[in-house]
Amino acid sequence: MRNIAAHKSCFLAFLLLLFTSQFASAAKKTLSKEHPCKRFVLYYHDILFDGGDVANATSATIANETKLGNFKFGKLVVFDDPMTRDSHLRSPAVARAQGFYFYDMKSDYNSWFAYTLVFNSTEREGTLNIMGADIMAAQTRDLSVVGGTGDFFMARGIATIETDTFQGAKYFRLKMDIKLYECY
Amino acid sequence: MRNIAAHKSCFLAFLLLLFTSQFASAAKKTLSKEHPCKRFVLYYHDILFDGGDVANATSATIANETKLGNFKFGKLVVFDDPMTRDSHLRSPAVARAQGFYFYDMKSDYNSWFAYTLVFNSTEREGTLNIMGADIMAAQTRDLSVVGGTGDFFMARGIATIETDTFQGAKYFRLKMDIKLYECY
Amino acid sequence: MRNIAAHKSCFLAFLLLLFTSQFASAAKKTLSKEHPCKRFVLYYHDILFDGGDVANATSATIANETKLGNFKFGKLVVFDDPMTRDSHLRSPAVARAQGFYFYDMKSDYNSWFAYTLVFNSTEREGTLNIMGADIMAAQTRDLSVVGGTGDFFMARGIATIETDTFQGAKYFRLKMDIKLYECY
Repeated sequence: MRNIAAHKSCFLAFLLLLFTSQFASAAKKTLSKEHPCKRFVLYYHDILFDGGDVANATSATIANETKLGNFKFGKLVVFDDPMTRDSHLRSPAVARAQGFYFYDMKSDYNSWFAYTLVFNSTEREGTLNIMGADIMAAQTRDLSVVGGTGDFFMARGIATIETDTFQGAKYFRLKMDIKLYECY
Repeated sequence: MRNIAAHKSCFLAFLLLLFTSQFASAAKKTLSKEHPCKRFVLYYHDILFDGGDVANATSATIANETKLGNFKFGKLVVFDDPMTRDSHLRSPAVARAQGFYFYDMKSDYNSWFAYTLVFNSTEREGTLNIMGADIMAAQTRDLSVVGGTGDFFMARGIATIETDTFQGAKYFRLKMDIKLYECY
Repeated sequence: MRNIAAHKSCFLAFLLLLFTSQFASAAKKTLSKEHPCKRFVLYYHDILFDGGDVANATSATIANETKLGNFKFGKLVVFDDPMTRDSHLRSPAVARAQGFYFYDMKSDYNSWFAYTLVFNSTEREGTLNIMGADIMAAQTRDLSVVGGTGDFFMARGIATIETDTFQGAKYFRLKMDIKLYECY
């Protein structure tokens, strides 16, 4: 009886460990698009400086569009934009998006972004660094979250953006669905 | 006595293994430079806009070179360049490279790139985000693939680039050897 | 015989599991902020070109500040800056920092960086790619090390920067504490 018990407990230990190690390996090797380890939606508000409206503007053109096509190819904009929980521009900013975008297609509007989400509240402190193509022809576009600091230490993930409103050159709003797949 | 010994040794093995696996997981993953999980070569074609040739141009200067040295220091170019499987400019584009480069050395030609490879075909859909120094003095230069989306969900790797041809300011071609070491 | 069988099956389970867990641990990570796998401090020296001083300058403005506020919003600088082990500008450079920064706040000085640390010595060869917000209001600021090549193959980590000296527009020096948490 004792040796059967020994056999049994060994087998149970084996099963337990197998389960544990498989669970552990799920932390990275088997990432699932459907199961981010952290997720939140924020709205990005961009009010382009027109030369006069310093009080409200949140971004400014630093290189003008070129004559390559009719879709602002090369226009480069630096921004320090508020990020809010809902789509209202006047809602309290829970983060800032600091970075730049430029237009980069001669046959249609298309752009490219690199920026940092800066969090500095009692709730969250730290940054997320994001870059990627804003393929405007697509309904939603995936950018890469390539790193994080502070509460987002070493994070990686995907930022899915969607144009929420576009009011000419003056104001546009993006919905950003931030999904982190590596959290530490 | 023997069965108790068996029981004991099994338990010790269990503890040892538990310790070992935890210790190992805290240390590192074992990636090998020689064994990417995905690899492919593409050619990048850049035709710089000269002010007239809208039909053929794929990139445009948005900030002119400065007077710091004689190697175009500071010249900033935005591009939307075709990527082909072979080195022929007129081959079908299997992806677009959208991003920018600038020259950044006063004593020689040297540049820096950040861009997204955009795939949108029946074969592959998604993006790869890439950045790094194009150290022109070296035969091949390694840039970092810092993230991916779609079919390249959360990918990381190395993009090794090599100048395939350089025809003055007007046209140059790079061979890009994309090696992914993290695939999901 | 039974207890020897128990002993044996336990040993086999142990071997199998050892193999399994090593394979599994290749995937999982538990990162700790306090325990980087590699760490070093370097000093970054930036001497902005004023139009005349080609010999000493290491960076140049390629887009001028806008009129959005009084803190150089939009000023874009490309650099090829020496990195030294101590804070002395004339110490031998052990790496170059090649990239750009721009100012991005209308109410205070604040900036954003993307650059590559290029190592090319007998000691270290390779690059580290870094991006993030330089939140000047904070004593120290964390940027993301998003990738590496050569001796830093596939590295990730945090670069903590601190202003070491700031001498007007002409010269500033940053202390960079590079902490890698993924080493291969």
